[in-house]
Amino acid sequence: MKQLRNTTKFRVRFSEVDSLRIVWHGNYLKYFEDGRDAWGAEFGMDFIEIYEKHGLLIPLISTNLEYKYPLKYNEIGLIETTFINTRAAKAIFRFEIYDENRTQLKLKGETVQVFMDVNNVLQLNTPTFLEEWKQKHEMV
Amino acid sequence: MKQLRNTTKFRVRFSEVDSLRIVWHGNYLKYFEDGRDAWGAEFGMDFIEIYEKHGLLIPLISTNLEYKYPLKYNEIGLIETTFINTRAAKAIFRFEIYDENRTQLKLKGETVQVFMDVNNVLQLNTPTFLEEWKQKHEMV
Amino acid sequence: MKQLRNTTKFRVRFSEVDSLRIVWHGNYLKYFEDGRDAWGAEFGMDFIEIYEKHGLLIPLISTNLEYKYPLKYNEIGLIETTFINTRAAKAIFRFEIYDENRTQLKLKGETVQVFMDVNNVLQLNTPTFLEEWKQKHEMV
Amino acid sequence: MKQLRNTTKFRVRFSEVDSLRIVWHGNYLKYFEDGRDAWGAEFGMDFIEIYEKHGLLIPLISTNLEYKYPLKYNEIGLIETTFINTRAAKAIFRFEIYDENRTQLKLKGETVQVFMDVNNVLQLNTPTFLEEWKQKHEMV
Repeated sequence: MKQLRNTTKFRVRFSEVDSLRIVWHGNYLKYFEDGRDAWGAEFGMDFIEIYEKHGLLIPLISTNLEYKYPLKYNEIGLIETTFINTRAAKAIFRFEIYDENRTQLKLKGETVQVFMDVNNVLQLNTPTFLEEWKQKHEMV
Repeated sequence: MKQLRNTTKFRVRFSEVDSLRIVWHGNYLKYFEDGRDAWGAEFGMDFIEIYEKHGLLIPLISTNLEYKYPLKYNEIGLIETTFINTRAAKAIFRFEIYDENRTQLKLKGETVQVFMDVNNVLQLNTPTFLEEWKQKHEMV
Repeated sequence: MKQLRNTTKFRVRFSEVDSLRIVWHGNYLKYFEDGRDAWGAEFGMDFIEIYEKHGLLIPLISTNLEYKYPLKYNEIGLIETTFINTRAAKAIFRFEIYDENRTQLKLKGETVQVFMDVNNVLQLNTPTFLEEWKQKHEMV
Repeated sequence: MKQLRNTTKFRVRFSEVDSLRIVWHGNYLKYFEDGRDAWGAEFGMDFIEIYEKHGLLIPLISTNLEYKYPLKYNEIGLIETTFINTRAAKAIFRFEIYDENRTQLKLKGETVQVFMDVNNVLQLNTPTFLEEWKQKHEMV
């Protein structure tokens, strides 16, 4: 099946590193957002537009991270973001963070998001815009 | 003249400390917000209410910080927040951060805020709610 | 079996809230650290002392979070931190975040840490200090 | 006199924006660090090397920021970092942040750093490595 995967890079800031001279574990979720934004830009899914045009918020309901090797100050990380296709009314992304040359997996994780309208009502069916987007990308 | 000053405490988090094992310099602005919130709670100035009731935003236009001695992980800091009275249509706060027992000044700073309506129009005169608040606190 | 559980509170800062006016999802890991620090203070496990006295680092190898309801600016959160006893050479903590009055579960999660010496060698057996601490707390 | 100025760009993250949908004011100091790092890479001043080779820390003793216009989520900012030459034993940097096309000044600020040896003794004279670096760049 078709996999929509984006690869982008980021640099570790001094302020993101803790007293053990490695990235503080919560900051990797910022790099996940870099990955998701770059993925959205590549595959035409704009989360602000989804809100403004379709009136849908996409809150995160769960995340998990597995830490293998730390990143350090000033290092360049490479993040691969993959959209996981599902029949459920969810947006699931898988993330893998590597060193700049993609020789060592540093960390992997996943985020699960759902769709809510502006009255905070959970959408039980996949929203129309997402169905259409999936058809366009040959995912259904 | 009357000085409205609040004193509150905070604890330094692990995630707020950098690789030199001291608070990263930008994080002190979070403690300033702790001070300003505690000051507002003590003297009856609720920034959310000002927005919802009076339609005014209070953006920060400048800040400065002078660092004397660093705070470390798990230390308790004491912050003194003082409202600086001015005829200008501004809200000026002065901050001093000490160790828990107030024996050593660690850092001092200031923030200057202005008043803008919801159309981002700068208010050139002190807003009515602030004039009334000042009268109540014998500042005019 | 005996459960070692700590309860502590925290306040949501303005800087921790995102443009949807709820805590940015990565910031909950800061509250987890508040919980773990308060737990350590209550039950006599000082992570800095473990490093300085026993030469052991306790890196996080995985974490997961399940988001139910968001916290907002200036809200007080209550966090319950529970040490999960295990025969493995790991430190596992479970976290539950509630509103101030503990009427609604907002979020739950878990962190898993391992023990490494200063040469980054993973400890395959539970360190002696932890065995002794467990005996003292009637966990073995 | 010769001015050593670097220009680099950054993107605003979702997690850096506050509930007013603009960058939280303390986060601009992270962009200042992006600017200082890029400046150091361009002009051969590596702050880690200064510590490891010359045993000198370069703590920040003051900073100030003047906010003109805010940056928003996903915007690209352009930051100009200028080294301000001084006879004092200090490292002074001036920062200007613009929109991507450099048509509007969003913010400016300054940081002042001093030199301390590993025993936290303040260096009253400009360190030798810095004098030599200045000569190389025709600043003395």
